[in-house]
Amino acid sequence: MKVYGAIEGGGTKFNCMVASGPEDILEEIRILTTKPEETLAAVIDFFNKYEEKSGEKLVSFGVACFGPVDINPSSPTFGSITTTPKAHWAKTPITAPLKNVFNIPIAFEIDVNGAAIGEARWGAAKGLKNFVYYTIGTGIGGGAMVNGQMLHGLMHPEMGHMVMPNIPGDDFKGVCPFHDHCLEAMATGPSIEKRWGVSAEELPPEHPAWELEAEYIAAAMQTTICVLSPERIILGGGVMNQLQLFPMVREKTLKRLNGYIRKSEILEDIEHYIVPPGLGNSAGILGALAMAMDVVEQDK
Amino acid sequence: MKVYGAIEGGGTKFNCMVASGPEDILEEIRILTTKPEETLAAVIDFFNKYEEKSGEKLVSFGVACFGPVDINPSSPTFGSITTTPKAHWAKTPITAPLKNVFNIPIAFEIDVNGAAIGEARWGAAKGLKNFVYYTIGTGIGGGAMVNGQMLHGLMHPEMGHMVMPNIPGDDFKGVCPFHDHCLEAMATGPSIEKRWGVSAEELPPEHPAWELEAEYIAAAMQTTICVLSPERIILGGGVMNQLQLFPMVREKTLKRLNGYIRKSEILEDIEHYIVPPGLGNSAGILGALAMAMDVVEQDK
Repeated sequence: MKVYGAIEGGGTKFNCMVASGPEDILEEIRILTTKPEETLAAVIDFFNKYEEKSGEKLVSFGVACFGPVDINPSSPTFGSITTTPKAHWAKTPITAPLKNVFNIPIAFEIDVNGAAIGEARWGAAKGLKNFVYYTIGTGIGGGAMVNGQMLHGLMHPEMGHMVMPNIPGDDFKGVCPFHDHCLEAMATGPSIEKRWGVSAEELPPEHPAWELEAEYIAAAMQTTICVLSPERIILGGGVMNQLQLFPMVREKTLKRLNGYIRKSEILEDIEHYIVPPGLGNSAGILGALAMAMDVVEQDK
Repeated sequence: MKVYGAIEGGGTKFNCMVASGPEDILEEIRILTTKPEETLAAVIDFFNKYEEKSGEKLVSFGVACFGPVDINPSSPTFGSITTTPKAHWAKTPITAPLKNVFNIPIAFEIDVNGAAIGEARWGAAKGLKNFVYYTIGTGIGGGAMVNGQMLHGLMHPEMGHMVMPNIPGDDFKGVCPFHDHCLEAMATGPSIEKRWGVSAEELPPEHPAWELEAEYIAAAMQTTICVLSPERIILGGGVMNQLQLFPMVREKTLKRLNGYIRKSEILEDIEHYIVPPGLGNSAGILGALAMAMDVVEQDK
């Protein structure tokens, strides 16, 4: 039985897991994201203690980390966070300290791609070769699988920064420090809070905030469908825990597309086309596990 | 020496070519796009006559056709045009009549993907595994290569129908019958003509039409870069023959991204990041040739 290390590195906490499969989780921990030295030392300590206690060696790591990150294996800064505005974490190597201590294969991805990989293996995108996963919360990220592989190009996508239309009646200026009117500017949790003066969690389901939120998400769906032609779109993240959004987003997406994309998957079955994550909040950590399993599979 | 058939099927003409390579073109013809029976009969006749005259058998066809088309090889309508508004051409099988007569392997793609394949093989995207090709003319289409393969998902992309922002001062309603304010609505040749009351070709290079056109194209660049993270973007098509657009589009794209994507390829070298096609107007037909060459390579 092989034992893998999985790490979901987020801006508020690092989730770490030892497992031999998604049904066979051996140990888990949540470590607060403070300063890199401190957080990464605690991460290493967790896995070290597991090995000492069990007498087993981990065979590989999968790491899905907040970014932007360098995912180019031939780059000298591969496995690092690059330019995050988060204090202390810019230019932080994530995989290098793990490699130094454990010297085992390490797969590395941006967090949202990790969640997408989890959904592809065991969740709502099982069996699909082309789909998109969004996380809509404090920020907005999107990951795409194309022809069975995660989309990487010049770097990873930054789908939260796509162009948004003006929605009549909404003159809110947005919360993105870079772009006036991108998806992240208009539709994150913090944008909802700033626009309405109350946190998203406190807004009742019938509040007009959700109708407007669904308008922006539907605009993102139009662009996503026209640019990436996915077989399915998964919407995760804290904002999408407001499940009343799903029927609104689906209806507004159909209205926006206006019959142009004549595929029955969209026109007749949108309930199975725009969906919540199958793995709920575990998509990221299970995706990291899938990455750890794949990296040794590939090495053979 | 192998001899291939290449077909670039457009809404106004079908370009057909017999060649053994991009430098070794044996025969070419342009056939007007009238009714399917008539046009396809003339196409078949051209290739038939070449075989009779030369005594050589074509080994394969590459067909890049206007769409929407069915590019799913396991679909019963693979190789057909599906729902085009062009009179007579909806639900027209394109590869089936060729297969009946010649019975050789046929590669089939949407026109813009054909042009992208040409650019990848011999043009401005040579050596790249991730890039986007746009054609901006009577309509707008986009094709993407991701990890070395053309992006196909639920169907091919329809990038012309992505969401556009409101550009202050422009209250034009757009020309897309499906979407109020998509890229195709705002930035095609016909939209320029309808907005300014004079055809695009007649507008002088210093006319404000081009500044506005560049604004919309730059918005499309922002979304394209954030969603697909390409290593390069090629802008082709009739509208982009107005070469004064390139510096405007590059400048406005940088302004829109506002330093968020910190890659030197964009920040320091955008002249080589947003570029005209290397093959000019031959991208499509040469792409069809590359497809014909690949389909027999794969069959071996």
